[in-house]
Amino acid sequence: MQRFKLTIEYDGRPFVGWQRQENGPSVQQALERAVFAVTQAESVVYGSGRTDAGVHAEGQVAHVDIAKPLSAVRLRDALNARLRPAPISVIACEPAAPDFHARFDCTGRRYRYDIINRRAPLTWQSGLAWHVLRPLDADAMHAAAQILVGQHDFTTFRSVHCQSASPVKTLDRLDVTRAGDRIAIHAAARSFLHHQVRSMVGCLKLVGDGSWSAHDLRSALAAADRTALGLNAPPDGLFFVSAHYR
Amino acid sequence: MQRFKLTIEYDGRPFVGWQRQENGPSVQQALERAVFAVTQAESVVYGSGRTDAGVHAEGQVAHVDIAKPLSAVRLRDALNARLRPAPISVIACEPAAPDFHARFDCTGRRYRYDIINRRAPLTWQSGLAWHVLRPLDADAMHAAAQILVGQHDFTTFRSVHCQSASPVKTLDRLDVTRAGDRIAIHAAARSFLHHQVRSMVGCLKLVGDGSWSAHDLRSALAAADRTALGLNAPPDGLFFVSAHYR
Repeated sequence: MQRFKLTIEYDGRPFVGWQRQENGPSVQQALERAVFAVTQAESVVYGSGRTDAGVHAEGQVAHVDIAKPLSAVRLRDALNARLRPAPISVIACEPAAPDFHARFDCTGRRYRYDIINRRAPLTWQSGLAWHVLRPLDADAMHAAAQILVGQHDFTTFRSVHCQSASPVKTLDRLDVTRAGDRIAIHAAARSFLHHQVRSMVGCLKLVGDGSWSAHDLRSALAAADRTALGLNAPPDGLFFVSAHYR
Repeated sequence: MQRFKLTIEYDGRPFVGWQRQENGPSVQQALERAVFAVTQAESVVYGSGRTDAGVHAEGQVAHVDIAKPLSAVRLRDALNARLRPAPISVIACEPAAPDFHARFDCTGRRYRYDIINRRAPLTWQSGLAWHVLRPLDADAMHAAAQILVGQHDFTTFRSVHCQSASPVKTLDRLDVTRAGDRIAIHAAARSFLHHQVRSMVGCLKLVGDGSWSAHDLRSALAAADRTALGLNAPPDGLFFVSAHYR
């Protein structure tokens, strides 16, 4: 039995999310079916983190155990052949230590949230970015975002379905940058609560369009109460960028 | 009658190209239908340049004459409402002088060609980039590209359907840059021959994968003969970025 570390890109639009569910196709299920097609053995594919319906990944990381003797390159190409036409691609595959765990060993996760800020409708970015019509002040959003950096009780930004043991997390980075009509929000932490990135982005959008001041954001954080949340951003603009391991 | 300058973004995948044709839906036709729906008058929408089937635009420019009294902002929003669900978006609309001509007054055109260079299949970029599996040397491509910059007879890089009066064009810029597995090729000129960007990119790909030397590219250009063309790149990765006016 050989354990492999997989780096996976996917378009979240057709999926109910990463995790195997009864109510529709998931990324995990598609990967497990591809592994079965290649190896004729049932295997669980463990991800570094779950993503919700409609959320994308540039670099989700997972691990899987394979009994069939296959090189990493052959496994990658065989999985990709079996995954088609699903928009899931194994962009890297490497042998891992037998005790490597994609979720429990992960020491850093990065997400990017893309907003397109203009009146005109989206074309090819539809479903791949949040379309915000009201003008956003990205500098004000970036300044306010720094309130959230550091160790805080993020209960306000936590889904009721969150399974994390504690609402206290350390946010290492939350940067907002604009290039033309595109605003990118980069978030990095060891781990995030369920819906945390989308909830933080939703509130930063309120700061950006002038509905909220930076003080309102500070109060929402301090409230440590989900009902203080201003807005949850849609999944469309969220990308799981990378998972890091020591 | 008021003339308007439109800046248009589109996803080229569902279209036979910019120009109105018998054999399928075109971007021009979709725009002219939207204008008719808004004004109840037949109008021609003149583009700064044609794009082929499957080629995209971030900033195609066109002009159209409108008799109905409408502000530029109202016209933009009305056209966008009528264009849905086609992936065409009028991102800017402004009043233009009565003699402004999107094609004849254009003094500069910019294109970008996106390549994704990796073994793994594409996901959301499918149809929006050329997927090249063999490793490409972007530095070698950039160096060879400089052979094409300047004034040359570009007959080698010209489609048999090209309607340009002369094959002599001045290429102002042809830059190749890599970021991760993404290679972007930026091209700028006053005007291009039909298929010129795709033909230049196709030959640069041969240089990048080692099939051609820079000398082979120089010989192909000097041949001034379409049969000397190494490869025409697919439309997928080509974006009309902008049109410029004095």
